[in-house]
Amino acid sequence: MNAPLPNHLLLDVAQRETPAALIDALKARFLDRCSTAMVVREQHGRDESSFAAPPPAAVVFAESTLDVADAVKLASHYSVPVIPFGVGTSLEGHLLAVQGGISIDVSRMNRVLRINAEDLTVTVQAGVTRKQLNEEVKSTGLFFPIDPGADATLGGMSATRASGTNAVRYGTMRENVLALEVVTASGEIIRTGTRAKKSSAGYDLTRLMVGSEGTLGVITEVTVKLYPLPEAISAAICSFPSIEAAVRTTIEVIQLGVPIARVELIDHNTVRMVNKHSKLNLREEPMLLMEFHGSPSSVKEQAELVQELASGHGGNAFEWASTPEERTRLWAARHNAYFAAIQSRPGCRAISTDTCVPISRLADCLLDSIAEVDASNIPYFLVGHVGDGNFHFGYLIDPSIPEERRIAEELNHKLVTRALTLEGTCTGEHGVGLHKMDFLVLETGDGAVNMMRTIKRALDPKNIMNPGKIFSL
Amino acid sequence: MNAPLPNHLLLDVAQRETPAALIDALKARFLDRCSTAMVVREQHGRDESSFAAPPPAAVVFAESTLDVADAVKLASHYSVPVIPFGVGTSLEGHLLAVQGGISIDVSRMNRVLRINAEDLTVTVQAGVTRKQLNEEVKSTGLFFPIDPGADATLGGMSATRASGTNAVRYGTMRENVLALEVVTASGEIIRTGTRAKKSSAGYDLTRLMVGSEGTLGVITEVTVKLYPLPEAISAAICSFPSIEAAVRTTIEVIQLGVPIARVELIDHNTVRMVNKHSKLNLREEPMLLMEFHGSPSSVKEQAELVQELASGHGGNAFEWASTPEERTRLWAARHNAYFAAIQSRPGCRAISTDTCVPISRLADCLLDSIAEVDASNIPYFLVGHVGDGNFHFGYLIDPSIPEERRIAEELNHKLVTRALTLEGTCTGEHGVGLHKMDFLVLETGDGAVNMMRTIKRALDPKNIMNPGKIFSL
Repeated sequence: MNAPLPNHLLLDVAQRETPAALIDALKARFLDRCSTAMVVREQHGRDESSFAAPPPAAVVFAESTLDVADAVKLASHYSVPVIPFGVGTSLEGHLLAVQGGISIDVSRMNRVLRINAEDLTVTVQAGVTRKQLNEEVKSTGLFFPIDPGADATLGGMSATRASGTNAVRYGTMRENVLALEVVTASGEIIRTGTRAKKSSAGYDLTRLMVGSEGTLGVITEVTVKLYPLPEAISAAICSFPSIEAAVRTTIEVIQLGVPIARVELIDHNTVRMVNKHSKLNLREEPMLLMEFHGSPSSVKEQAELVQELASGHGGNAFEWASTPEERTRLWAARHNAYFAAIQSRPGCRAISTDTCVPISRLADCLLDSIAEVDASNIPYFLVGHVGDGNFHFGYLIDPSIPEERRIAEELNHKLVTRALTLEGTCTGEHGVGLHKMDFLVLETGDGAVNMMRTIKRALDPKNIMNPGKIFSL
Repeated sequence: MNAPLPNHLLLDVAQRETPAALIDALKARFLDRCSTAMVVREQHGRDESSFAAPPPAAVVFAESTLDVADAVKLASHYSVPVIPFGVGTSLEGHLLAVQGGISIDVSRMNRVLRINAEDLTVTVQAGVTRKQLNEEVKSTGLFFPIDPGADATLGGMSATRASGTNAVRYGTMRENVLALEVVTASGEIIRTGTRAKKSSAGYDLTRLMVGSEGTLGVITEVTVKLYPLPEAISAAICSFPSIEAAVRTTIEVIQLGVPIARVELIDHNTVRMVNKHSKLNLREEPMLLMEFHGSPSSVKEQAELVQELASGHGGNAFEWASTPEERTRLWAARHNAYFAAIQSRPGCRAISTDTCVPISRLADCLLDSIAEVDASNIPYFLVGHVGDGNFHFGYLIDPSIPEERRIAEELNHKLVTRALTLEGTCTGEHGVGLHKMDFLVLETGDGAVNMMRTIKRALDPKNIMNPGKIFSL
């Protein structure tokens, strides 16, 4: 038992003991909604990262905020770690029980509580996923734009400050969460924020919790902004003679203030993988996938301007899609990139990078890093939310060859160092988790990280809320 | 000495002693940039609120971040309060030395440090004002939209999470500050954030500091977003038969997702004051002042749609302005409202309210509150950033009549209670300061306020950073 998944790196962990008395108390309170079955524990002790650790000692399936509060109170009584779990799509090891403890699964807290269509807001339980949310609000003519790729829960997206393809126009979870309900480290239930669009009422606890990766509390309810479904949507693919040409086009689009809704880069390498995986015949050149939202005339205006800018950089083969079906086909390339890449090297693991730089530095950051990874001979894919200066290399390593992991980590280290020099960040949207703690210190300095530690110690004196993530204590 | 301004309410304060040794040390370090002259102290011990307290014991004129850090270190050594001062436009008593201490004036830290036009960002010292900033970035074709009315400093605007007329389109300081440099309570200098447009790198210290009202640190540098100057700008005034008609129009504009840049309400009462003050002859009816930004065709499209919606509610006398001169004339009504109101009752003080509610609740909140204030016979003005659900009554009280202040406070209390019931906030943009501490507890509950207190105690164990604001300790 407790064997790591064969393809993951087993972490050097410092498990704290989970007393049998806590398990007994949880079973008494939650009956069969507290599981110690190994298969359940293992399922809750991993995520989409390339790490592994022994699983949590038990999993509690919460069905209400009160359930979460009671579970946290019991864990607090025994000073045992608590790890919130949504659907397990973290890329950074957020869900791993590196110090032992219990997992609180909120996926059954999946009710859309209040749709306030006239205010463009919705309040949901933390376990609602973004696709479910969009399904449930569809009839109102509104939508929730944040799309990190995975069908993550709103709780998890809040906890990691997620974003994705639409962020260039609609912002990230930082800009789109209005209020939260949170269970604190002592099991108290608090509300941060109201449904007012803006507020100066004290410390911004909402945004302190957004991106805190479960280390300050368990998010149980989320109120987010919705947006009117655009009257017109148009998507386009454009191929470019080089990555640089695609990036230069993107930079001009952003600098001119075009309110583009999506602008995604895929390199020629990844297009090739996608063609093979999805039996498409896209030109195997760097491409931008774009989407325009607005009134019909505004969409037309944006699209014409962008086409003109692209042409100036040798962009060609503009392919337009205005119906939902055509758009789905065009976006399939982007959505399948990860799976296509994984399948291009059977048995591989992807180590994903997540740097984000100011838009003017994007070409410098990207081109030098591509040269480095090309020279390394590690296979990779490259996709990017380039309108935000954010991109992901996925280094496709053979986990049975330690040297490949070493090289991938070295490439990532060089990339992050470069991004920081260019005034960027080590993580645009995935979070720090287990993997970027040293990068966080490099990025913000000891002073800022110590301020984070001080806040953590004050709000979670027993260090039970997802300990061992973001920074060491 | 220490006499309060005659028109202000003298607060019941708990002054802490400022040891002579601290003043000596400050004078040794800052020479004539540390002043104990009463006129200087009094100027730094008041703001635009209707409160008064004894002035700070000394004022330090900081010219660099290091100056601020050294002043804070000295104050910390003697456990003496520190109050950051920009240009003194707080409406909530933020600048009052209610527990004594020293004022750190950052107005000489007024350099625009780095304009990164290609990234749409700028980094300034905390003492730069918004008008100065816009003057200095003008040649780049960019602008900084946040406009709280007063020509406040970027440091002060960050500290109070300010917003104003353009927030409906461009957001508030919450959305527009990318990064800060802050001097902590121990005098350490930290940086929060980078110039990357988005980040998931640890706790969002930037947004913890934005809106913290000087209680967690002194903001010394601010990096904010800039926006391309719109290709076309068009402004319009429209009169309505009733407040309700104006508000219903606004609600529809927002619900349809029209990207309106400004939508300000002025009631008929205030129009009358403005007419008298500025010798204008605007129709003395409730009016909306609007501004549209975008491409010429988008501006036209927005304006046509809004005009149609307004007509549906009896809106008439649409007056358009497209040249800068015409726009300035139209906006004069809004910009002069405060002064026009003050002059309408010589010797009066304005007590300003600041509630903000979800847009669907705006009519309910506003109409009931207007009925209450009309019944009270207290003169008032009413202006509102109604696109955000935020509005301000200014109760024009005679400070020599305590009964009027009592009635005004009672009206405000009813208004806030109503706004909270409607899922709004007691303060949309002015901050809590001295005046709304009880409202903050009503709004967020003891649990959330206790979390704020815990953070404050952890980051400022000696309670020297602008103590006595936001919450009692």
